[in-house]
Amino acid sequence: MSRNVHVAIMGATGAVGTELLEILAERRFPLASLKLLASAKSAGKRLPFKGEQLPVEELTHDSFKGVDIVLASAGGKISATYAPSAVKAGAVVVDNTSHYRMDPTVPLVVPEINPQAIAKHKGIIANPNCSTIIFLMPVFPIWKKFGLKRAVVSTYQAASGAGQTAMNELCDETRAHLDGKPFARTVIPHPYAFNLFPHNSPMTDNGYCEEEIKMTKESRKILGADGLRITAMCVRVPVLRAHSESINLELEKKASVEELYAALKGVPGVQIMEDRAKNRWPMPLDASGKDDVLVGRIRKDLSQENTFDLWVVGDQIRKGAALNAVQIAEILAK
Amino acid sequence: MSRNVHVAIMGATGAVGTELLEILAERRFPLASLKLLASAKSAGKRLPFKGEQLPVEELTHDSFKGVDIVLASAGGKISATYAPSAVKAGAVVVDNTSHYRMDPTVPLVVPEINPQAIAKHKGIIANPNCSTIIFLMPVFPIWKKFGLKRAVVSTYQAASGAGQTAMNELCDETRAHLDGKPFARTVIPHPYAFNLFPHNSPMTDNGYCEEEIKMTKESRKILGADGLRITAMCVRVPVLRAHSESINLELEKKASVEELYAALKGVPGVQIMEDRAKNRWPMPLDASGKDDVLVGRIRKDLSQENTFDLWVVGDQIRKGAALNAVQIAEILAK
Repeated sequence: MSRNVHVAIMGATGAVGTELLEILAERRFPLASLKLLASAKSAGKRLPFKGEQLPVEELTHDSFKGVDIVLASAGGKISATYAPSAVKAGAVVVDNTSHYRMDPTVPLVVPEINPQAIAKHKGIIANPNCSTIIFLMPVFPIWKKFGLKRAVVSTYQAASGAGQTAMNELCDETRAHLDGKPFARTVIPHPYAFNLFPHNSPMTDNGYCEEEIKMTKESRKILGADGLRITAMCVRVPVLRAHSESINLELEKKASVEELYAALKGVPGVQIMEDRAKNRWPMPLDASGKDDVLVGRIRKDLSQENTFDLWVVGDQIRKGAALNAVQIAEILAK
Repeated sequence: MSRNVHVAIMGATGAVGTELLEILAERRFPLASLKLLASAKSAGKRLPFKGEQLPVEELTHDSFKGVDIVLASAGGKISATYAPSAVKAGAVVVDNTSHYRMDPTVPLVVPEINPQAIAKHKGIIANPNCSTIIFLMPVFPIWKKFGLKRAVVSTYQAASGAGQTAMNELCDETRAHLDGKPFARTVIPHPYAFNLFPHNSPMTDNGYCEEEIKMTKESRKILGADGLRITAMCVRVPVLRAHSESINLELEKKASVEELYAALKGVPGVQIMEDRAKNRWPMPLDASGKDDVLVGRIRKDLSQENTFDLWVVGDQIRKGAALNAVQIAEILAK
């Protein structure tokens, strides 16, 4: 039984914030009220929602009176500062930043995978990293049915993972490049027009970057599988808003390509999309703006027993962030 | 003792052909004469070489009189048609197409790896696939020292792999996309502006595309290691002319990250390029126009014993094609 709930969005003007508004409208989320919060700089702006122009208010510690659910995507530091105030005011925070994800008191949730974890929340529920969500959507049904010995993943991550400003910068830099003009980058640390680079999240002592570590640690927490063996190489490519992943899975129980396709068929949020005869497989443009994570090219890895390759593409802003958060909020609203 | 040789280039007007001209000049290749051959369509054009404008002649079966070495990069069908005529006329063909690569009578050569194979030629020497060369350049010294149980590779391949027209089309389509204008593709089969797709080479019955199969089969032939276990996922990314590869290597003999760096240090054609403190690793723009294959981010794979991740970037047109062919020709000229 749904009840109408009072929702606030922290970081309403960003790429994920804008998408949250669209998804709340699209899914007819049972809203009693909707409050848009952002930095003082953005306060006073108006954002379109269901034909209205909603005002953006400055985020303060007093922003959360009467709010039931806060959808937070204004960065880890903002969540760390304001989420406790929201919880104190009686709201539940669905946090899209990395700040609380590995906190043992905070559930880390993909609604199609571990919705039961939501009930254990103590005021904060974390939305996983985008690459992790897109990885797990097709891997979870396979893991559940056949067990997973080890996964080797290489990502092809879009600009949107670094926010709307990064997406704009990729377009602006590319135009400058085509015009042979100089360009001063402010968001992306490396040349990005017709270029790519290993993910620019901070390096850890073991040689992995934080993005890569997240894929292992968050997957383990979501599946409740402490020993899960995953290695990832994360790369940013000059694509706007969907992540792709090349996934190699060594399974525990004997499986066939046909059984993997069968395991994924009809799974909510996963769509098998391919036309083998036409050599046509999922692409970022196919996934952009879509809810489903697209899967194709499942094949037997000829280099090792009972090992399979998958090609996976998902919208980084939707299922990788905003949609997953709204799905959590929908369960909370029930 | 070098002698001056008569060289002909088949496919002189393409991306690799143009690069062959530059590299022959740059490396002061001991030329007695240089003949530029292309289709009837291109005959009569002139191409710059060492301050001169050399005429392009129409390729015919009679083009090879007095020619010592033919550098062929006009496509597999053209090589199949004209290489036998060149051999009949007494020339040695260094073929950059895939046509003769797996022919057991044809050596497949990366000069830094198996130069000894050149001596066994019967008129034709094959230049390996670009992804294979870039993969093997750093993997060969590691394989030699530590043995290789298995490699899992994901590629990030540039437009240049599909030729100069594909590079032009990527730029043109991207500009049209930025301007919100429609664009009619003629070379690349899928949307390419801010998009990517699994490699469009023909699919084989086992679910791999031909490009992926080449990486395994050609690596085995070059190393003379029939049982070598490699699985590859090949992807085209919107980058102009350098391929990147995410490589996961399970080794036979026990190794450390330090030993892998030591094994690659000073290897001709391989350059370790990284600044760990600045989170700066090889990028396609770093490798573009360079001879060396760049390597960085070597790290221990935490998911499996004695397994390591590498990030590798190399210029597809130079070491992936034209440079490798000229290096073979240099050995032939000695």
